[in-house]
Amino acid sequence: MPKPDHHIFICMQKRPPGHPRGSCGERGSEAVFNAFSQQLIQRNLQNVALTQTGCLGPCQAGANVLVYPSGVMYGWVEPDDVPKIIEQHILGGEVYADKVAPAELW
Amino acid sequence: MPKPDHHIFICMQKRPPGHPRGSCGERGSEAVFNAFSQQLIQRNLQNVALTQTGCLGPCQAGANVLVYPSGVMYGWVEPDDVPKIIEQHILGGEVYADKVAPAELW
Repeated sequence: MPKPDHHIFICMQKRPPGHPRGSCGERGSEAVFNAFSQQLIQRNLQNVALTQTGCLGPCQAGANVLVYPSGVMYGWVEPDDVPKIIEQHILGGEVYADKVAPAELW
Repeated sequence: MPKPDHHIFICMQKRPPGHPRGSCGERGSEAVFNAFSQQLIQRNLQNVALTQTGCLGPCQAGANVLVYPSGVMYGWVEPDDVPKIIEQHILGGEVYADKVAPAELW
């Protein structure tokens, strides 16, 4: 693809049950990834890239979603947040404030 | 970590031998990742994040390395390129032109 206008990275890290850090995988990242994938297809957003990643850092705030080039990290993301992130941030150019990770995490 | 000044993403995608697209894993991405990891530690670059990813797209140009927020994709990256990307791009603020992916790929 040509260089996208927005690049959405989703942490898919998995850790064994009971691991002290937990993981985004345990916190529903696969459903979040699928929701983004579906939104991009439904809205035909060809200028937006979507990529799975390993650990992005703030495991306690998973599922983590990081958007570049704006450099905004969203935490505790659930599938219901995905249309709002798409509408407000990707299409509207305004950060979806409800789920922005706090400054101590990013 | 706090929001980094540079975020380096490395495609670690693996595919079975003989797969028509090949993969960055097959093209040495693990050694490239290790080289970046070593450089960041040796130079104590705490303002640079390093993250493994799934497929970034231009498989034929692997190993692929993507740097944000500048949005520069490097292709055909080998471990020997890593100190040059660190010095020129991350520390010097100038793209390491030798391995920038061509415009038709990114």
